[in-house]
Amino acid sequence: MKIKLANSYGFCFGVKRAIKMAENSPNSATIGELIHNAEEIKRLSDNFNVKTLNSIDEIGDEKSVIIRTHGILKQDFEKLQDKKVIDATCPFVKKPQQIVKDCSSKGYDIVIFGDKNHPEVKGVKSYCTHDFVYVVLEPDELESIKFHKKIAVVSQTTKKIENFKKIIDYLMSKAREVRVFNTICNATLQNQTAAAELAKEVDVMIIVGGKNSSNTKQLYLISKQFCDDSYLIENENELQTDWFNGKNICGISAGASTPEWIIGRVMEAIKQI
Amino acid sequence: MKIKLANSYGFCFGVKRAIKMAENSPNSATIGELIHNAEEIKRLSDNFNVKTLNSIDEIGDEKSVIIRTHGILKQDFEKLQDKKVIDATCPFVKKPQQIVKDCSSKGYDIVIFGDKNHPEVKGVKSYCTHDFVYVVLEPDELESIKFHKKIAVVSQTTKKIENFKKIIDYLMSKAREVRVFNTICNATLQNQTAAAELAKEVDVMIIVGGKNSSNTKQLYLISKQFCDDSYLIENENELQTDWFNGKNICGISAGASTPEWIIGRVMEAIKQI
Repeated sequence: MKIKLANSYGFCFGVKRAIKMAENSPNSATIGELIHNAEEIKRLSDNFNVKTLNSIDEIGDEKSVIIRTHGILKQDFEKLQDKKVIDATCPFVKKPQQIVKDCSSKGYDIVIFGDKNHPEVKGVKSYCTHDFVYVVLEPDELESIKFHKKIAVVSQTTKKIENFKKIIDYLMSKAREVRVFNTICNATLQNQTAAAELAKEVDVMIIVGGKNSSNTKQLYLISKQFCDDSYLIENENELQTDWFNGKNICGISAGASTPEWIIGRVMEAIKQI
Repeated sequence: MKIKLANSYGFCFGVKRAIKMAENSPNSATIGELIHNAEEIKRLSDNFNVKTLNSIDEIGDEKSVIIRTHGILKQDFEKLQDKKVIDATCPFVKKPQQIVKDCSSKGYDIVIFGDKNHPEVKGVKSYCTHDFVYVVLEPDELESIKFHKKIAVVSQTTKKIENFKKIIDYLMSKAREVRVFNTICNATLQNQTAAAELAKEVDVMIIVGGKNSSNTKQLYLISKQFCDDSYLIENENELQTDWFNGKNICGISAGASTPEWIIGRVMEAIKQI
């Protein structure tokens, strides 16, 4: 059985990078869960003694502190000056942090398209040097705001561009200059596109991920459109031999919260069939 | 008869300013017609000996050279170094010229929303310091262009914001940063809004302007919506006494190509009724 992986699948670039950094920093602690996957967090704890703290107040005698992909508040970052900091903030999140810092110090009002309570957004917002910073999801939330002449706008990395465009549309009538930074990361879209492309050229398609994960289910449905023999599994134990009868090429993709090592086990098991 | 002028009417700020500058520069020449109004150009010629040239090549022994509201090409401006230059470029046109110069030198690709052949647009475009400058009216004209990471966008001053928004919508998926400068001037809209407001509070409304001028007709139709006794005239000779029978307040507005002195004559004539 020939096995082909999708060109893009599973963890995004930023999460992969953060996990590698955690593996390289044994006996450290992350502030907040490094990723939304209990098995993976357990593995990091068991194998590398990487603990998970709820906030910077819980930091004890850890050798070093890992900042997760979402980033943290600027003021929290500053409190860590006397610690060894492993900054695993995703570079795609660092970008809007830097933009908000630069543009606010140049006198731009700041609009962040995103969820007020999301840790990434809270972190990005904390880099604003003044009080004219607004986090919104819909244009009508902007109505009562009296803007100055220049506005800089960033987006939470996981938002959809269609909705971001609505915000910009509205702001264009509100200021002389609207500086739009498209900080949306296309990781989810890339996984979907890659799954569709792979499904077209294989005989059987295996999607690995949680059955209650919405992005995994989405991948499965997309795959099914192009390859009727598509299957969604959580781990290698669910594989069935007859799925592969008379097939030559098997494609594999995985949801955004599926660790590489689970995918590896699935690949091994398919090879044995 | 009490007479009330609309809060905004007739020539826009930039044209008024240019005419004043021409009146203050007798024996000079303008490059291209100062405004699209033959009567006014004749007046400037008769009273101030301000000539109209077709291009800078026609410049002879004029004491000084007047640049009209549209502005001129950067390279033409530079050729006038040994002349006394009266720069009547509208400040609202200077702005996009400056933006194009600044942003192109900072490495932004430049998109100008406007008519390729309009003198204002040609002038604005000429301030770009590189070749990545595109003049478009519709998003589909952008499709074949390979943009760099940063785009700065300006608009021709007389365009509508609804269409400008479509261009920005398209560009947002094409670059990491889209810096939008809303350089649209609302002079026409302001005249319309002011005419509507005035029409609501007067007994009779006089709109002064060419009967074949589309913006003048538009003003008349707007006025008529709020004041049934609205009349469109080209000059004071068309006024009829019975329009004012039993009326107390007369409102006046004027089209964008109507000189102030024609409006003055109309006001005088109404006072005499």
